[in-house]
Amino acid sequence: MAGTELRTDFWLSEYLTPWDVYAHGITRMLAHCQTAYQEMYVVETGSYGKALLLDGKWQSCTADEFLYHEALVHPAMIFHQSPRRVLVLGGAEGATLREVLRWNSVEQVVMVDIDGEVVAACQKHLPEMHNGAFDDPRVNLVIDDAVHFLEQTTDRWDVIISDLTDPIESGPAFQLFTQEHYQQIQQVLAPGGIFALQAGPISIPELYLHARVIKTLRSIFPVALSCLCPAMSYGVPIAFALASQDLISPYSDPEAIDRHLAQHTTGGFQLMDGTSLLGLLHVPRYIRQAIEAETEIYTLQSPPKPFGKGILEKPL
Amino acid sequence: MAGTELRTDFWLSEYLTPWDVYAHGITRMLAHCQTAYQEMYVVETGSYGKALLLDGKWQSCTADEFLYHEALVHPAMIFHQSPRRVLVLGGAEGATLREVLRWNSVEQVVMVDIDGEVVAACQKHLPEMHNGAFDDPRVNLVIDDAVHFLEQTTDRWDVIISDLTDPIESGPAFQLFTQEHYQQIQQVLAPGGIFALQAGPISIPELYLHARVIKTLRSIFPVALSCLCPAMSYGVPIAFALASQDLISPYSDPEAIDRHLAQHTTGGFQLMDGTSLLGLLHVPRYIRQAIEAETEIYTLQSPPKPFGKGILEKPL
Amino acid sequence: MAGTELRTDFWLSEYLTPWDVYAHGITRMLAHCQTAYQEMYVVETGSYGKALLLDGKWQSCTADEFLYHEALVHPAMIFHQSPRRVLVLGGAEGATLREVLRWNSVEQVVMVDIDGEVVAACQKHLPEMHNGAFDDPRVNLVIDDAVHFLEQTTDRWDVIISDLTDPIESGPAFQLFTQEHYQQIQQVLAPGGIFALQAGPISIPELYLHARVIKTLRSIFPVALSCLCPAMSYGVPIAFALASQDLISPYSDPEAIDRHLAQHTTGGFQLMDGTSLLGLLHVPRYIRQAIEAETEIYTLQSPPKPFGKGILEKPL
Amino acid sequence: MAGTELRTDFWLSEYLTPWDVYAHGITRMLAHCQTAYQEMYVVETGSYGKALLLDGKWQSCTADEFLYHEALVHPAMIFHQSPRRVLVLGGAEGATLREVLRWNSVEQVVMVDIDGEVVAACQKHLPEMHNGAFDDPRVNLVIDDAVHFLEQTTDRWDVIISDLTDPIESGPAFQLFTQEHYQQIQQVLAPGGIFALQAGPISIPELYLHARVIKTLRSIFPVALSCLCPAMSYGVPIAFALASQDLISPYSDPEAIDRHLAQHTTGGFQLMDGTSLLGLLHVPRYIRQAIEAETEIYTLQSPPKPFGKGILEKPL
Repeated sequence: MAGTELRTDFWLSEYLTPWDVYAHGITRMLAHCQTAYQEMYVVETGSYGKALLLDGKWQSCTADEFLYHEALVHPAMIFHQSPRRVLVLGGAEGATLREVLRWNSVEQVVMVDIDGEVVAACQKHLPEMHNGAFDDPRVNLVIDDAVHFLEQTTDRWDVIISDLTDPIESGPAFQLFTQEHYQQIQQVLAPGGIFALQAGPISIPELYLHARVIKTLRSIFPVALSCLCPAMSYGVPIAFALASQDLISPYSDPEAIDRHLAQHTTGGFQLMDGTSLLGLLHVPRYIRQAIEAETEIYTLQSPPKPFGKGILEKPL
Repeated sequence: MAGTELRTDFWLSEYLTPWDVYAHGITRMLAHCQTAYQEMYVVETGSYGKALLLDGKWQSCTADEFLYHEALVHPAMIFHQSPRRVLVLGGAEGATLREVLRWNSVEQVVMVDIDGEVVAACQKHLPEMHNGAFDDPRVNLVIDDAVHFLEQTTDRWDVIISDLTDPIESGPAFQLFTQEHYQQIQQVLAPGGIFALQAGPISIPELYLHARVIKTLRSIFPVALSCLCPAMSYGVPIAFALASQDLISPYSDPEAIDRHLAQHTTGGFQLMDGTSLLGLLHVPRYIRQAIEAETEIYTLQSPPKPFGKGILEKPL
Repeated sequence: MAGTELRTDFWLSEYLTPWDVYAHGITRMLAHCQTAYQEMYVVETGSYGKALLLDGKWQSCTADEFLYHEALVHPAMIFHQSPRRVLVLGGAEGATLREVLRWNSVEQVVMVDIDGEVVAACQKHLPEMHNGAFDDPRVNLVIDDAVHFLEQTTDRWDVIISDLTDPIESGPAFQLFTQEHYQQIQQVLAPGGIFALQAGPISIPELYLHARVIKTLRSIFPVALSCLCPAMSYGVPIAFALASQDLISPYSDPEAIDRHLAQHTTGGFQLMDGTSLLGLLHVPRYIRQAIEAETEIYTLQSPPKPFGKGILEKPL
Repeated sequence: MAGTELRTDFWLSEYLTPWDVYAHGITRMLAHCQTAYQEMYVVETGSYGKALLLDGKWQSCTADEFLYHEALVHPAMIFHQSPRRVLVLGGAEGATLREVLRWNSVEQVVMVDIDGEVVAACQKHLPEMHNGAFDDPRVNLVIDDAVHFLEQTTDRWDVIISDLTDPIESGPAFQLFTQEHYQQIQQVLAPGGIFALQAGPISIPELYLHARVIKTLRSIFPVALSCLCPAMSYGVPIAFALASQDLISPYSDPEAIDRHLAQHTTGGFQLMDGTSLLGLLHVPRYIRQAIEAETEIYTLQSPPKPFGKGILEKPL
């Protein structure tokens, strides 16, 4: 590549598939800790600001996290109309909390994260992300395993947001993408409740995962639809999913959405408005067709295998 | 990355920015030629089928080229309603031709590409892409420089499609992204004509380019809007632009679009339908805001600098 | 790395170990063929001239192959004093032949290579390496498996050179590094005969392989010693081995060696002279100590596992 | 590369030339500091133990530093016979000191390093390297620029060791490879004194540098010869140089050297003995020929350009 000047020596190489590598140039290591669960780095990158890495995987970065977190949180909050009690699973950076707290109707947010050391490190090293959200009196931080928390909670939630940025990891997170887990979620949703979750890459080599997550959701919920995530620092496009007992219409008048946001939130959006929402919910046909064609669902007996680590479950 | 198994030794490393590298694993070299203008490879990749590389840059691949070419061609064809005469600038693979020819109203397509050797090699080695389009009697292939062709043509065109996949290269292509060139395009558009073009990455570090292209178009055309490209094999999201003398409304009823496509085309779409179109035209707010905030335009005196080669015109 | 300008897009990435990668920038693909046994490329590199790649592994290159082939061939030829009949196992490029043919005493060279297509391709595309050696009337090229050839030959050889550039591959080559194979070699060596072979990397993480090869040789031959290979394009230092029934003294007067070469060869050496020989045979102490400490040998029941492919047999 | 399992995500990519990259997998960051002069990391690698990086360049590592430091220090100490006063330029890790202190005759070692913060960090984080050397009462650590120190010192030295591991950096180190600097060194050498220095890679693409350093030394010193460095973690072979007013004979009887080491040192060598020394000093012919053919020398007016950073001074 004639003329390219390199400006760093450290690279974080992520294998999207065994034949697709995205490497981020790291300009500085800002923090590092080894917790009981994982290895954490906060690094400075050349293009994308500060980034959080867990076990060598890119989680989020200050330059485009708003695209991720606004698209994860607000569609569910908008469609619910008046969410009061919100449950966040994962979400160490505090950016999901930050977005939830923009809604005036919210009275309580419980955030359940398994790794208190990572949450503490994010509070210290990523103030750009949480922006003080952990100090809001409506927030209750619980250090616990999500599955365990759901088993014993007697509360009901208007919106549940699963912010496990790398959806399927080794260990217990596997089960968070199964029919059994979605049934558990369904049981703690209040009437009219909505479940929003990270739902995998939508690149063609890895699209089957998203298709299976949607089909698994549809085995439990009457309604499950895709919502695009416009963040780009992962190197592949990814999508979220929204699931509910009730109809969610992706056809919303942008101006009506804009008015709704103006009335019910404290504002400050960088991504969300009526036009963005319309675009995010009208996903390209190749994704819809892959979902239609998909026949497998994930269960505890047949869970997803790891992905996002250079391993393709389904040969091309 | 524990557990990752590599399956190739050859890698095509593309510097998206000086700190962002996307590497494609190459499993086989299928063809190679050095033309008077550039070096061309057709390779087999592990994840994305067969790919065309020019001067070491990824142009398109069989796995996701439909996402690129359908999103480039059809919005302009739809909005025109009844395009009869279409001009394609570049488009060596023949896939843009292939999409244009789906429209029943089309009577003539002139494709102008500077490099006849690359066109011939694509005809031979990428039948999956052109699908016989060069044999259609409506097609007229002209080997010429786009600027020179436009200077001397006396024809007028209903739709002009600029399929220069890497928008800004060294050499004469620089000028194809300037106000002067867009004026030239405007002069050869028939009344009601629409101009569609590749318009750069929309990742945050490189977004200024798209914003400047749109602003440059708006200095000539009353209407210029962004249209997302859902192809993902470039490692960054990119966008197209549509420009016209006349209003283009992005709010179209998906069902009406579906009926229009059914009536006026031979079908066979993998991406395009009313829902996809609605999604592609409602671009996220951060892009619209960047366009609003942009103040520079590109002229022959102040042209764009190369991008897509690891060089950022604007420091972060 | 401030200031580094990249000049290529294609890279051949070789995993020396799972944590050590050497990547060669490829500037042009010159030839490619898929044979019954392997995939072959001849490429042009930026730093090391033309290179031969087999199954994605770097074999040799025009810039430094003389360092490899002169150090492989000449120590055995020198110590034998008057080699008349030479057997080369492998050696597709013809460069080993070329070096053997410099010796006036040589009456016959049989080269046994399993892959006739690769030999033919090297004859065509790498004339810099064979330099016409295949046309020498003393040469007899046999396309056969080395093990099979040795089983059925009734000839005896003064020097046997095993030029299997990647010593341990999947498939039958595994057995070429076992006690049983070395016994087979010993039986076809003429009295006073010498066996020279590629004997693995001598980098610290991979040194055990060389140590085991030497120890395996010593289980059959009274004498087996290391000889350094000064080629550097592999990214790690490698070593050869010399084995014999008779004493080989590494302490030779450089001037006597120079006179011997002048009298008995056609000359034209780029590496070999008395001073080089003295240096190559006096290997650093850490290698000698690793050999002393090594207790394992390779047998057909306990053969070496693949190395040189990013897999370490022995954890660090 | 079928079968390769990656075990890390962080890579230190070093451009040896613009077409040769050596990447080390980093398994853990152990320490990081930004000093007034440079950025320092101590990292854990997968293959080579703990490593010191300065400004993104690999300096030394615990797995093979003994090969570097023993080959840098001991030839000069051996040839001098009875060194009492030793000057070390650079050498932050303390490993050069450690080797110097093995000699019973040594009464004083002055180590001059420009960056006290890096020295302090090495003392803390790399005890495997210095092994307590800084606490030896014979050691005097001076934090100063080498050129400035040499300008003002009135002492004379038996052995001077230039341990600037990356020989030519931006800034003042450029001048440390010029005729003028070698003259300065010559003036502070005691009668019979010897100067040992790192003298560049000896890979074919970069060999001219070593040739010019030797020729520059020979413009000042009657004797200047090459000495191989067997360390391999740099990805390319490198060489040292020895310079003196007096004859240095590379032909030494190994057993006599072994006896000399036994009598005059505290022992503990992992590399050095008579056989190693003989091998290191008998450098391959291609290096000797490159030195013979070289006509340029480095002066303050015509200093070396940076190398070891992917930039070749001399086109191939």
